[in-house]
Amino acid sequence: MSETLADSVDMARLSTEDADFEARLDALLAWEGVSDAEVQQRVADIIAAVRRRGDAALIEYTGRFDRLSVSTMDELTLGGERLERAYVGLPAEQREALARAAERIRVYHERQRPTSWSYVEEDGSVLGQQVTPLDRAGIYVPGGKAAYPSSVLMNAIPAHVAGVREIVMVVPTPDGVINELVLAAAHLAGVDHVFTIGGAQAVAALAYGTETVPRVDKIVGPGNIYVATAKRAVFGQVGIDMIAGPSEILIVSDGGTDPEWLAMDLFSQAEHDEDAQALLVSWDERHLTEVEAAIVKLLPTLEREEIVRQSLARRGALIRCRDRNEAVCLINRIAPEHLELSMAEPEALLPEVRHAGAIFMGRYTAEALGDYCAGPNHVLPTSGTARFSSPLGVYDFQKRSSVIHCSEEGASTLGAIASVLARGESLTAHARSAEYRIKE
Amino acid sequence: MSETLADSVDMARLSTEDADFEARLDALLAWEGVSDAEVQQRVADIIAAVRRRGDAALIEYTGRFDRLSVSTMDELTLGGERLERAYVGLPAEQREALARAAERIRVYHERQRPTSWSYVEEDGSVLGQQVTPLDRAGIYVPGGKAAYPSSVLMNAIPAHVAGVREIVMVVPTPDGVINELVLAAAHLAGVDHVFTIGGAQAVAALAYGTETVPRVDKIVGPGNIYVATAKRAVFGQVGIDMIAGPSEILIVSDGGTDPEWLAMDLFSQAEHDEDAQALLVSWDERHLTEVEAAIVKLLPTLEREEIVRQSLARRGALIRCRDRNEAVCLINRIAPEHLELSMAEPEALLPEVRHAGAIFMGRYTAEALGDYCAGPNHVLPTSGTARFSSPLGVYDFQKRSSVIHCSEEGASTLGAIASVLARGESLTAHARSAEYRIKE
Repeated sequence: MSETLADSVDMARLSTEDADFEARLDALLAWEGVSDAEVQQRVADIIAAVRRRGDAALIEYTGRFDRLSVSTMDELTLGGERLERAYVGLPAEQREALARAAERIRVYHERQRPTSWSYVEEDGSVLGQQVTPLDRAGIYVPGGKAAYPSSVLMNAIPAHVAGVREIVMVVPTPDGVINELVLAAAHLAGVDHVFTIGGAQAVAALAYGTETVPRVDKIVGPGNIYVATAKRAVFGQVGIDMIAGPSEILIVSDGGTDPEWLAMDLFSQAEHDEDAQALLVSWDERHLTEVEAAIVKLLPTLEREEIVRQSLARRGALIRCRDRNEAVCLINRIAPEHLELSMAEPEALLPEVRHAGAIFMGRYTAEALGDYCAGPNHVLPTSGTARFSSPLGVYDFQKRSSVIHCSEEGASTLGAIASVLARGESLTAHARSAEYRIKE
Repeated sequence: MSETLADSVDMARLSTEDADFEARLDALLAWEGVSDAEVQQRVADIIAAVRRRGDAALIEYTGRFDRLSVSTMDELTLGGERLERAYVGLPAEQREALARAAERIRVYHERQRPTSWSYVEEDGSVLGQQVTPLDRAGIYVPGGKAAYPSSVLMNAIPAHVAGVREIVMVVPTPDGVINELVLAAAHLAGVDHVFTIGGAQAVAALAYGTETVPRVDKIVGPGNIYVATAKRAVFGQVGIDMIAGPSEILIVSDGGTDPEWLAMDLFSQAEHDEDAQALLVSWDERHLTEVEAAIVKLLPTLEREEIVRQSLARRGALIRCRDRNEAVCLINRIAPEHLELSMAEPEALLPEVRHAGAIFMGRYTAEALGDYCAGPNHVLPTSGTARFSSPLGVYDFQKRSSVIHCSEEGASTLGAIASVLARGESLTAHARSAEYRIKE
């Protein structure tokens, strides 16, 4: 079977038996979020200016890029009271939903906290690791159309649960437009204060500090290509989370889920933006055709119909595979950000899933539930990076110190081994330092 | 008190009471391992060539940079048998020391393994995280004078303990010089095969794969500025560990440790290279003077005297502080890679240490013991990055997937919350996907 176009949806239909399947899948998955030399140079200039001129540079760039004319950083600062006011001022239904989501996210993340540990050896030596929170975290929140309060909860609550002493948020407010839901979420999530700045200049301020913006230890949160480039540039000076690509979902269906549900699950991914990716895999050909029909039927009812159409046409696909085992191979090859196992007994398949950001099990667990309020984080590895990275979590806001306490006896034993190895590496001061601890 | 030069050691002596103390400490700590535009461009060219021409580019660069003239990748490949042969061929004392170190490192790292977890909510929904190993890890090992077998153990054993399916090592062998100890360590640590390539070309090969070198999921291990620049460039395509700066130690002494022991502990850091940093802090002025005298006395006895002299002169210091509390402030400000608490009852101070890569407790725990065989990893965050990062560990070779399995009841409850929040973000397909799961 090759590509078939339904009456009014331009979405690839593939089969793993197609001769060109591998090449077509590669082309669909291809994504490289690399910034060109011009963007890199502009970002380097902005970072240098913020390091050199601090607040003055921030004020200047905010005037230029966000069209905000201010004379002091005070005008770009929102304190805890302002955040609380935003929360109190929300309509009751939104306030309640936000609070319940925050509570569920907090409960889930509390289970994630790594703990210090140690053990004592026979000779009395103690070995272990001490876990401590970061002193200060910076949360980047995009402004404008992509300003999502849920994203504030997902980025800030893990930091708060980790015990981070101070959580600083930056969010650009182009033309002075403030999103009250975003501020309310910041209040709920334990953000200490907010600067209404954005772009590479905000990343530079968080990484190096200015007269007003405190230097943080780690910067998390999504942003445009300037933000991503700046995060990559300051990596090492501060910690950063992964640099996110477009959002994606891979749904594996056994054919038993309502086709309209699946169509809407695909749409919920595709509506993010034109580069978002929505893939459905099934070994049931008839089912794929039913989902395609549901897509055709429901597409015209969507508010974001045009974005969804473009996303499905550019990066979406309905894929027929031979069987369940081939579906597992596709999952592990794609390493999707979101994986829906829309089937009976998804538990049976779970142990075979090696790479996925988040796994939504069964017909009832729509990805949208996880995006907002199930509890797990919605900041997830994209573009196949689930091969080596994890959902944002409490562990991202803590770090470990090794702890070694040798007894006199233990130091003597270890000293003899270290001496041989150090001399093998021609590091004789290492060897002599160890040898001092060998008992006569 | 200001800087005093001892008879024959050029090492700063500072006091926290000096008017210019803050500025001088800042200058001592300053380190920025940023590569210039020329290095970046050369690295970008090398990466592009390896992506385009694969093995052919590797063979060409290895000829140019390592002066190895080969015609096939076979000649740059060492299999498991060759590694075992290196191990068997070692002198007994070295073989035994290496094996005991490997065993201790393995035992320690086995305690580090994160585990999958889940919990069931009242309505039957299940939430948790599934922990899985990386499929394939790449270990970069520097060649030439800095080829350290201990580094092979420290980088590869955590990957092996994590359950990584395939561990690939790269090590350049300039002029064909092979270090048998390095290969023996690779055998002990569970490395599957070795390619004798290095530099940015080796990093590119691991990140993107060639006809011969398999694409890995994460690259760890130290290297020169080309290696570091290449790792930064491929970050996102693969995972990487931290980009390491020069090695450092901060020793806090209560005055009760033998000055010669402390001098040698400082030397063991300083002998790494001219940029290494060795700092000693004490509130006991007389003790600092005694350590200084021991430095003067022992320096001429060192094999690497010249490197140590330069390192101490450029980046070393003996620092007098007011008291124990001020020492704690210095620790947390410096966030040292290695911290020696050379004192009675270091346990009392431990909870106050917020930032340090590894903490060596008491007078017997020389850093050198931890470098080789105590068990904890010697790959540690440098240049103050202990503020936000951790020793290399098993957790670096595993990742997590969120698992969400909503019951029908749970999906209905969550659907109502998600619907409100999604509509607040104008993501109506998200809302409708959630609403399908609300029970009538």
